[in-house]
Amino acid sequence: MPGIGIIGYGYWGPNIARAVTEVDALALRAIADPSIPALERAGRRHPSVHLETDWRELIADPSVDAVAIATPVSTHFDIALAALKAGKHVLVEKPMTDSVFKAELLVEEAARRALVLMVDHTFIYTGAVRAIRDLIDNGRLGDIYYYDSTRVNLGLFQRDVNVIWDLAVHDFAILDFLVRSKPLAISASAAAFLPNSPENLAHLSIYFDNGTMAHLNVNWMAPVKVRQALIGGSQRMVIYDDMQTSEKVKIYDRGVDPAAGAKTLREQLVFYRMGEMRAPALSPKEALVTEIEQFVHSIESGERPPSDGESGLRVVEMLAAASRSTVLRGQPIELGNLRNAS
Amino acid sequence: MPGIGIIGYGYWGPNIARAVTEVDALALRAIADPSIPALERAGRRHPSVHLETDWRELIADPSVDAVAIATPVSTHFDIALAALKAGKHVLVEKPMTDSVFKAELLVEEAARRALVLMVDHTFIYTGAVRAIRDLIDNGRLGDIYYYDSTRVNLGLFQRDVNVIWDLAVHDFAILDFLVRSKPLAISASAAAFLPNSPENLAHLSIYFDNGTMAHLNVNWMAPVKVRQALIGGSQRMVIYDDMQTSEKVKIYDRGVDPAAGAKTLREQLVFYRMGEMRAPALSPKEALVTEIEQFVHSIESGERPPSDGESGLRVVEMLAAASRSTVLRGQPIELGNLRNAS
Amino acid sequence: MPGIGIIGYGYWGPNIARAVTEVDALALRAIADPSIPALERAGRRHPSVHLETDWRELIADPSVDAVAIATPVSTHFDIALAALKAGKHVLVEKPMTDSVFKAELLVEEAARRALVLMVDHTFIYTGAVRAIRDLIDNGRLGDIYYYDSTRVNLGLFQRDVNVIWDLAVHDFAILDFLVRSKPLAISASAAAFLPNSPENLAHLSIYFDNGTMAHLNVNWMAPVKVRQALIGGSQRMVIYDDMQTSEKVKIYDRGVDPAAGAKTLREQLVFYRMGEMRAPALSPKEALVTEIEQFVHSIESGERPPSDGESGLRVVEMLAAASRSTVLRGQPIELGNLRNAS
Amino acid sequence: MPGIGIIGYGYWGPNIARAVTEVDALALRAIADPSIPALERAGRRHPSVHLETDWRELIADPSVDAVAIATPVSTHFDIALAALKAGKHVLVEKPMTDSVFKAELLVEEAARRALVLMVDHTFIYTGAVRAIRDLIDNGRLGDIYYYDSTRVNLGLFQRDVNVIWDLAVHDFAILDFLVRSKPLAISASAAAFLPNSPENLAHLSIYFDNGTMAHLNVNWMAPVKVRQALIGGSQRMVIYDDMQTSEKVKIYDRGVDPAAGAKTLREQLVFYRMGEMRAPALSPKEALVTEIEQFVHSIESGERPPSDGESGLRVVEMLAAASRSTVLRGQPIELGNLRNAS
Repeated sequence: MPGIGIIGYGYWGPNIARAVTEVDALALRAIADPSIPALERAGRRHPSVHLETDWRELIADPSVDAVAIATPVSTHFDIALAALKAGKHVLVEKPMTDSVFKAELLVEEAARRALVLMVDHTFIYTGAVRAIRDLIDNGRLGDIYYYDSTRVNLGLFQRDVNVIWDLAVHDFAILDFLVRSKPLAISASAAAFLPNSPENLAHLSIYFDNGTMAHLNVNWMAPVKVRQALIGGSQRMVIYDDMQTSEKVKIYDRGVDPAAGAKTLREQLVFYRMGEMRAPALSPKEALVTEIEQFVHSIESGERPPSDGESGLRVVEMLAAASRSTVLRGQPIELGNLRNAS
Repeated sequence: MPGIGIIGYGYWGPNIARAVTEVDALALRAIADPSIPALERAGRRHPSVHLETDWRELIADPSVDAVAIATPVSTHFDIALAALKAGKHVLVEKPMTDSVFKAELLVEEAARRALVLMVDHTFIYTGAVRAIRDLIDNGRLGDIYYYDSTRVNLGLFQRDVNVIWDLAVHDFAILDFLVRSKPLAISASAAAFLPNSPENLAHLSIYFDNGTMAHLNVNWMAPVKVRQALIGGSQRMVIYDDMQTSEKVKIYDRGVDPAAGAKTLREQLVFYRMGEMRAPALSPKEALVTEIEQFVHSIESGERPPSDGESGLRVVEMLAAASRSTVLRGQPIELGNLRNAS
Repeated sequence: MPGIGIIGYGYWGPNIARAVTEVDALALRAIADPSIPALERAGRRHPSVHLETDWRELIADPSVDAVAIATPVSTHFDIALAALKAGKHVLVEKPMTDSVFKAELLVEEAARRALVLMVDHTFIYTGAVRAIRDLIDNGRLGDIYYYDSTRVNLGLFQRDVNVIWDLAVHDFAILDFLVRSKPLAISASAAAFLPNSPENLAHLSIYFDNGTMAHLNVNWMAPVKVRQALIGGSQRMVIYDDMQTSEKVKIYDRGVDPAAGAKTLREQLVFYRMGEMRAPALSPKEALVTEIEQFVHSIESGERPPSDGESGLRVVEMLAAASRSTVLRGQPIELGNLRNAS
Repeated sequence: MPGIGIIGYGYWGPNIARAVTEVDALALRAIADPSIPALERAGRRHPSVHLETDWRELIADPSVDAVAIATPVSTHFDIALAALKAGKHVLVEKPMTDSVFKAELLVEEAARRALVLMVDHTFIYTGAVRAIRDLIDNGRLGDIYYYDSTRVNLGLFQRDVNVIWDLAVHDFAILDFLVRSKPLAISASAAAFLPNSPENLAHLSIYFDNGTMAHLNVNWMAPVKVRQALIGGSQRMVIYDDMQTSEKVKIYDRGVDPAAGAKTLREQLVFYRMGEMRAPALSPKEALVTEIEQFVHSIESGERPPSDGESGLRVVEMLAAASRSTVLRGQPIELGNLRNAS
């Protein structure tokens, strides 16, 4: 059975640790964090696990075959690169890195060593997003016209990333999973309302090669929490509301058809379909457990996970393009030009 | 008592006619529409009113002191200009015209003749928007950080205007009324999913001189109807949900304050205020009646209405800038450059 | 084409008049109301219709084949009886009468003269209730365990009837339509919080022969308007929410199955089914129009309408039993004993 | 510092244990449960605590000053009595006992020994219920007309208690806390839809001495989870919705006033007040922690807790009366006659 070590035991690390204990095929071997109180908490919950203050020690541990990295974004690259170089498989918190160049280097390093490099894009392992992908894959939505997401709440203000890198990253990962087309360009607007704080509100438009248009509304200063996406297809439309305890995904048999016979200006342009709505039963399995099972499966089979390093790179590319556009007040930034000719 | 004539008795004209009959200080004298069935409907509801197929006859009628224009947008300019030249006060359906140049000419003509030129920006006469303006004016919201509106539903596809001119126009009028600052630039994205149809989805970001950032999400192809705006201020935040039958305006005593004493990177950046929510009782008076009373008051007193010709011009300017930006995939268009040096 | 006269042009009469004009197979011939302003309103909307202050004149009118009665409940009996005796078909506002005895007399009189006696139980002609009945009839709900309705709002306080006769009457009519079983007994509690006012809050439990249990919560003094019924079946469950603009009927593939193999006290008693939810597309046709078409069809074919006089009688019987139980603080009143041995 | 022992480590016991560890003034000393796996779980979470399979050992432990009892209802009496006789303060899970007689005996025993006997009526220690009680106490609601609660969901079917003893018990405890008047009688209806299962649906009406009327709708077989109470007062009305994450308590400045001047039958009976709605900020403190702090405070000060043994007895009395009424199909059962002349 492969063994895993977790680097970073702050906000998200404990969740990974708990999820690992629920996956039979993986053994939790070590936890590293520079904070002594954090390690004490880790020790109480996982008494038989090796504890380290220095992540380099954890990487050097021969009982550790894979590492999960749950540290601040700015440290992802150094740790992940060291882990790969030590021959460890890597599961890294999202976003994978803070620059496209670093993401490219990690992808190359993993490929060179034939190691699994996987990004913790948790949402694509939820029952809800998987159900939507099935709808798309079996053609029930038809052509995807748009993906329109609102992801707002009060807090958490962070020091090291802005609201795009904190919240829009989820939608970029979902888009990368759902829309089977190349993003061409991004236009984004953002604002920072507090002095010396990162941007806390942003609106992003993403243009895809197949005509799909995505829009993300992210905001740390909203009075209520909203996690909702509207997905419009030529055949059906979906509302994905992650704040609902049940009926997270609603499929509407609604849409418009061009009015074939309309000849004069006064005739109606389109016909409306107003059919039934259906909310499918979703898998109640915790996304993080599904994700770690996928990680183990990829380690053992060599099969690429859906959120592999390439996916992580594409998401970082979109984040970088969006950031650049906000400085230019929405001027569209083309994707594909941000990568290095490495 | 002044007399009014209504030009156009299709979708909106009958509402104006009914509202006029509820205002004691104004007499409904004539209705003009080229459609005979429309005039028959008008005659059944308003038996004593003069009916015309040609709006020029209505304008020539000496018992008519003012005209309300509820015709397709492309015809607003010709009719309004003729009415002003005939010495009539004008209330014109939104948007005032289909170009900035035409809007400027109407404003000039009305000023030259000292006539009331008013645009039917109905929302600014609702109890909800008036309550929000009061909150802003008495400082309870503090600085306005953002106005973020979602205005989506299934239909109505129109032939002569796109979704921006049809739906975003409402928010531009509300912004013109609420935000006491100059809009500087607009970045907009749009898409048309049906062949030979106008754009049916758009996202618009508006940058104001005082730092306020507005965003509008308009869409004719959504599975459900949403009419909701989040307004974030430094002191309080508002949700304005026009689909609610009660509690359309909710005021949240929530927000963030910079953490004055935070010295180290690990300290929290901001403090959160999580106070009470309050939904004020709103005036139940119909907005259209309030608006027509304002029209009469302006005719009699010479006082400018809040939705005067200048306001109509500013809204058309924003519509034109947004349209131009969509062609350039979100490239920001500066406002103020669209006006002619007339 | 049969002609109809409407008696009573207060709150509901105008709706009947308008609906009649939308039914081609029926002619609106006359309207009677003692109030001159009411008749003036009627005349403006229906210029070619005969107007009367005395309903006896309307009944005597030979061009009138059927009458619709929309007067206060206490007058239903006298007017309906006179109309039947004059050979007119009768559509009477709900509740049919204010006593079981009077209802029985009307049923007998209509039967003796082979005239249609129909009660305006509007809800059973809605797309929502019809869809629920179809679900029951084709077995998709299974055995009906319960019908649990909440029908509350602020107002309207009425002088002549209490909240049971005003609001619970709707649910009794729906129950009479949906549950194909005899109601055995009713236990009801009620309270009047204002002096000299009728009861404004009541809770009613109805026991049916097949084990179905119904409960009604009616209240004129609630802060918000609720119109919601939960219907629990052995196979599926339904939420019928009449305040929703879409998705009024939601069908949940949820329920419990006895755990066949459970042997010990500590084993789980039941298994839960948590399947999909479905909201069918409902007929958008106005219920009142459907109802009047049914009235015409019954006049012409002799086929009994679903809300015939017998149905009206059963509903009045339930209202009378509920009223009696409230006086006895919930003591159950058996149904069937309230009828006379006529 | 007083020490506490917890008897029963199944569903609720672990929550009590965790809450105790968050209260500085109380030491968790021992946990008893007959199940070895349960004790193993307890040991992992609370390594330094004494574990027992026999609750008698725990009661005999001199380091234990107080016990919390979280065992099946049928065992509450024997354990609580033994604990009191051993001189321990007692916090017992709700309902206190399964009969009025047993509840009376516990109250007497605690009084004789001057020990704290407290019932775990958790809801009355929530920020929401405390806010409502403040509204009542400072007169802002006026006279309390009604309390109308809906508490329904799918499951959990239990073997040893029916839905009244499982769910209505919460509302009885809340009523005991909020309504400062004697309950006079209860009328209740119930049904069991599965063979060999306890009643899973019930409707209860409670008549109070001051005219307040309460109604409880409890159901284990509803398609969705609802936890909502409407509280109507002469001055204001409240909606308490425990499923909301924020705005659990909404206070409506709405109501009716008798129309003083109404003289004729046709005049309106009442005037409606339609003022603002307010949702106060609620204490986010966990109710169970507040409750345990109250337990410690009562142990140290001798001050009676709001959910003392007398309160537990009154709640059991209401449960017993409700159960009796259901057998008689809603016949009202007077309270006060159920106690023994002890």
